[in-house]
Amino acid sequence: MEDSYTIRIPAIQMEAEFTRILLKHSFREDKARLCASVFTSNSVDGVLSHGVNRFPRFVKYIKNGFIDVNAEPELIHSAGAVEQWNGKLGPGPLNAIKCTNRVMELASNSGIGCVALSNTNHWMRGGTYGWQAAKAGYVFIGWTNTIGNMPAWGAIDNKLGNNPLVVAVPYGNEAIVLDMAMSQYSYGQMEKKKLEHSMLDFPGGYNMAGELTCDPAEILDSMRALPVGYWKGAGLSLLLDILSAILSGGLSTSQISKTQEEVGVSQVFIAFDTRKLGNFPAIQNTISDIIADYKNSVPVNEQTTIRYPGERILQIRAAHLQDGIPVNKEVWNEILSF
Amino acid sequence: MEDSYTIRIPAIQMEAEFTRILLKHSFREDKARLCASVFTSNSVDGVLSHGVNRFPRFVKYIKNGFIDVNAEPELIHSAGAVEQWNGKLGPGPLNAIKCTNRVMELASNSGIGCVALSNTNHWMRGGTYGWQAAKAGYVFIGWTNTIGNMPAWGAIDNKLGNNPLVVAVPYGNEAIVLDMAMSQYSYGQMEKKKLEHSMLDFPGGYNMAGELTCDPAEILDSMRALPVGYWKGAGLSLLLDILSAILSGGLSTSQISKTQEEVGVSQVFIAFDTRKLGNFPAIQNTISDIIADYKNSVPVNEQTTIRYPGERILQIRAAHLQDGIPVNKEVWNEILSF
Repeated sequence: MEDSYTIRIPAIQMEAEFTRILLKHSFREDKARLCASVFTSNSVDGVLSHGVNRFPRFVKYIKNGFIDVNAEPELIHSAGAVEQWNGKLGPGPLNAIKCTNRVMELASNSGIGCVALSNTNHWMRGGTYGWQAAKAGYVFIGWTNTIGNMPAWGAIDNKLGNNPLVVAVPYGNEAIVLDMAMSQYSYGQMEKKKLEHSMLDFPGGYNMAGELTCDPAEILDSMRALPVGYWKGAGLSLLLDILSAILSGGLSTSQISKTQEEVGVSQVFIAFDTRKLGNFPAIQNTISDIIADYKNSVPVNEQTTIRYPGERILQIRAAHLQDGIPVNKEVWNEILSF
Repeated sequence: MEDSYTIRIPAIQMEAEFTRILLKHSFREDKARLCASVFTSNSVDGVLSHGVNRFPRFVKYIKNGFIDVNAEPELIHSAGAVEQWNGKLGPGPLNAIKCTNRVMELASNSGIGCVALSNTNHWMRGGTYGWQAAKAGYVFIGWTNTIGNMPAWGAIDNKLGNNPLVVAVPYGNEAIVLDMAMSQYSYGQMEKKKLEHSMLDFPGGYNMAGELTCDPAEILDSMRALPVGYWKGAGLSLLLDILSAILSGGLSTSQISKTQEEVGVSQVFIAFDTRKLGNFPAIQNTISDIIADYKNSVPVNEQTTIRYPGERILQIRAAHLQDGIPVNKEVWNEILSF
């Protein structure tokens, strides 16, 4: 990470830059601040691919008119604890925060709630909304569909999205947050590995000859990424897309893929209010007992630490808040030029 | 399948035998018939591992007192659209059918519903409840926890369950049903491959030297099955277990694993009533369009058919209903002897 191409940017400075740029692009002030805070938090948590490194593309999408900066999501249908909202092509993170807030209200009324959101844009890091809900005491299950970027099992062309799935639970003052795309590796990770001339630890897709490979360059040539668990992740991806489209009434991966840009995706937000459960007083003990037993696993060697999803983020977050966020100089200079 | 060790049993004859045996083991008549129909349907659908091949173990569990044959699940806490039920160690399939019926009622009231079930027994094929709900017009998401049978990522011992996840949607008069365990292969599949002296198509776990292997015998020695997508499936398994335990107030994989038998598991049933959605009239077209595009994928070769989850079951079902279910003679003779 640390080399002559990288500089450390304090979170507060990053957030101020993002806010400045969003205001310049006509965001209302409260929206600019909230949106800047999401891109900054994602960077603080080490997810630069959906933080600072993604910000230039977000600005490009605004300039191209793919994102309507001040659009407000609108309730289009209510069925009790399920609501369908139209995201009106607003900024993905703002739409997703609003829907996460709304699904928590529904869950507080009915124990469980669901908001299905059509016509929205990329939510950046799905884990953002898992952390948001879980830190407020809710169990969260959510996912988004995407443009086609992964083949069906047995296929060459990309009819499936990698449709990230987020599952989060409160854990003390923090949260356990799983944020998993249905492809074994993201294209961002593979591009990074290719630049470093290094191999993936496990096969991440196919080469042009149709063989599984650990070479990211070969996969980027074939564009055939591997679903997690082969046919299983492909199947789950298909079902998540169907659910996104029918629950929200929005676009499917197939429809999103008709344009070259990933615009107008469909998302599902489900929450449970843990305070409404009969065993609420025992829940934190239950989770602590599960994690204690899990971490008591016998590791394969002395160097290995058994971690739960989201655990490493706490250390990264603390380090980045203390030392600043390591940012590629070119990326940062581009941002400063906006 | 077809050899001197296999006989064909008509579904109606299988169901009659199962009913006879369950009645002999003190099942009330309606419960005996329903339970027999689940084991028979699973066999008709080709899932023999959770049908006829599993029936002897189910009877053994009854004899050992692990299953209370006439126990009725009891509502212990209601929070609107979420209910917590105690399965009272009744037969897993009967408890799961009852909870699936109940969650459909909740969904019809509130759009979405959830039943979390503690203290139940193995539900056999999770897909059973996906088909049940989806054929009645509901979207279904459900899962169960299990005894520890899979290691955490980076670990040797089995702290995680393979926690099967079911996602189902109505599709015409039938359903699209994904039923996936979090291990790449089940132990049942690996035992079958070992007996046939054949290799797995993809690595299914580790050998005693800690290397990934396609040899089922080596994995059965080490008992280190591979999670789908490596760290990703391990993470999802952990979260599904936490959700099972906290939503139901029941046992976690860690607690179930304290005994040597898989008794008293926790399950979650979530349903959406598609009729309550604003876009209900368009839903079947949406699904048909997604499936049409998916099946229009370019296959890797001419021999490959792109199938959606559950598609192959329709053909197996039709064939088994016409020609009978292929059953191992020893298994069938054991059943006849009960």
